[in-house]
Amino acid sequence: MVNNTAGQVVTCKAAVAWGPGQPLVMEEILVDPPQKMEVRIKVLFTSICHTDLSAWKGENHSQRAYPRILGHEASGIVESVGEGVTDLKEGDHVIPIFNGECGECEYCRCERTNMCRDYGVNPMKKAMVADGGCRFRTKETGEPIFHFLNTSTFSEFTVIESACVVKVDPDFPLKKMAMLSCSVSTGVGAAWNTADVKAGSTVAIFGLGSVGLAVAAGARARGASKIIGVDINPAKFVKAQALGISDCINPKELDTASHEEIKRLTGGGGVDYSFECTGNSAVLREAFLSTHLGWGLTVLLGVHPGPKMLPLHPMELFNGQQITGSVFGGFKGKTHIPRFAEDCMRG
Amino acid sequence: MVNNTAGQVVTCKAAVAWGPGQPLVMEEILVDPPQKMEVRIKVLFTSICHTDLSAWKGENHSQRAYPRILGHEASGIVESVGEGVTDLKEGDHVIPIFNGECGECEYCRCERTNMCRDYGVNPMKKAMVADGGCRFRTKETGEPIFHFLNTSTFSEFTVIESACVVKVDPDFPLKKMAMLSCSVSTGVGAAWNTADVKAGSTVAIFGLGSVGLAVAAGARARGASKIIGVDINPAKFVKAQALGISDCINPKELDTASHEEIKRLTGGGGVDYSFECTGNSAVLREAFLSTHLGWGLTVLLGVHPGPKMLPLHPMELFNGQQITGSVFGGFKGKTHIPRFAEDCMRG
Repeated sequence: MVNNTAGQVVTCKAAVAWGPGQPLVMEEILVDPPQKMEVRIKVLFTSICHTDLSAWKGENHSQRAYPRILGHEASGIVESVGEGVTDLKEGDHVIPIFNGECGECEYCRCERTNMCRDYGVNPMKKAMVADGGCRFRTKETGEPIFHFLNTSTFSEFTVIESACVVKVDPDFPLKKMAMLSCSVSTGVGAAWNTADVKAGSTVAIFGLGSVGLAVAAGARARGASKIIGVDINPAKFVKAQALGISDCINPKELDTASHEEIKRLTGGGGVDYSFECTGNSAVLREAFLSTHLGWGLTVLLGVHPGPKMLPLHPMELFNGQQITGSVFGGFKGKTHIPRFAEDCMRG
Repeated sequence: MVNNTAGQVVTCKAAVAWGPGQPLVMEEILVDPPQKMEVRIKVLFTSICHTDLSAWKGENHSQRAYPRILGHEASGIVESVGEGVTDLKEGDHVIPIFNGECGECEYCRCERTNMCRDYGVNPMKKAMVADGGCRFRTKETGEPIFHFLNTSTFSEFTVIESACVVKVDPDFPLKKMAMLSCSVSTGVGAAWNTADVKAGSTVAIFGLGSVGLAVAAGARARGASKIIGVDINPAKFVKAQALGISDCINPKELDTASHEEIKRLTGGGGVDYSFECTGNSAVLREAFLSTHLGWGLTVLLGVHPGPKMLPLHPMELFNGQQITGSVFGGFKGKTHIPRFAEDCMRG
């Protein structure tokens, strides 16, 4: 890669969200050079995740900010680095991580969490930590364009804090690596790190999008004996079964609630683990009720628009069933993802 | 103890609840002999817990059942045993446990729970498992009187399933042992088993009744570095401090929310563990918010009347804070309480 743009303002194309639900506009923007502890990246692959859609629609009013460049599941190559960045250099193959890891704060130094004080996932954050400013501007008026999820990958070039950039082996295909920056890490990590699925256990997955399928792959790798997939779109069942899902349930075709069907499929007791990947409050309750009394664990992965409260009565927590959230699969991005990428490539 | 009542119907005094909120009536009742796998006990000590009050008031409509004999924190001596009971005999010093342990069901055989399929805590259960009948009758008309929490100790004699009776060393004072049948086990166990409080960690306890104080004793025994007590009754602070609570907060005297004061007292971060011992929904939310982002754990101990839902938004579970219920402190009664009684007597 020939790079004669370091230190320069780059002009490139980006998809800009100008308002809630308004069509993204593909337009030329200006991208400033990276500042201290920042990295500018040429984005090669990026996909759309429901979290981008939710922000685009402005489902959570407090998180609305426009104009904004969305996008967080991606991969690319480092174009230039800012002052102080030592772990990344021009030409490195990288994936952005929306849930960063500075390595130094009280959270990063704690084994029990993958939150980071300054660079953790935060849909409200719309500017850079260094100076509170934006690195994107419109070409026409120079108006600042907000950042999103530490990443903003719907742009040919983006500036990301180095805490939110993970280097991967240049021999690995960047197209596949992009999926490690959100769906695959989130789903597999939820099964491995958050739930710690045990061999021989039973699992139910609500929502068979890429995150739900990654949960299935993670649970299968751990030796789960039964993996039940739940989705209202039967077209998803083919891929689901290829990925290790043993039973598929379409709630629209059931006479009973999903959790009752899941109890039936597990001999009456319910599953050891359920994963909620839809962001739907009623589904969350089904996921909770489908777990086994005494020890069942429900893991939340879906993004739930406010202001709805958890659809559970406090006393329902007295049956030994637990519920917990999982962000980026519990992985500490910079620490764990390079090794996880190797595991994925090995198969 | 001379026992010539085995196999006979016993006439004795009991406090009978005839309707929601109606004064308990001290009256003579008839107590049938224990049936298969049941034990009849002469109750020597019994106390009143908020769970008794809640059932007396009929706060949860679905749990209303009258006439009923309440009471579950108690101790006594076995008067006679029914067919098949081999681990208990006449004259044994015992405490009833509202959360029984049959030792044979799929829950009792699982290390991850202290639920029991047939004898677990269940405020709806009002009769015996063996035949669905009651062992109490009114003296006047022979009308059945319902059981409560597997125990019904507001009576000179009670009949309890052997799965809900724990034998203790006859050298231990029965007055103190009574507290192991609810408050002390629930509180200490919540700190030890449910939360697994670590040395050097910080704790907040909401509600400084006997359960809250027992949590404090449990946390102190584990070496917690700071134990913050929260109560609206400052009279409780004297005993609280004697039991190891380092800071006392009266929400009525604060200009800010309790959780903000707790964050201040912990250098901004919040506590590692909070314990909700009041059964109040707003307090539950304060308890949750007072824990540290990333790893804080809230343990529910208080009984919450329905139908209020958990006052938490699903996305609040994405900050790494967890919430869980604790029943009988996570102890399996028959397996763990005899050893716990020894620990308590050793101090």
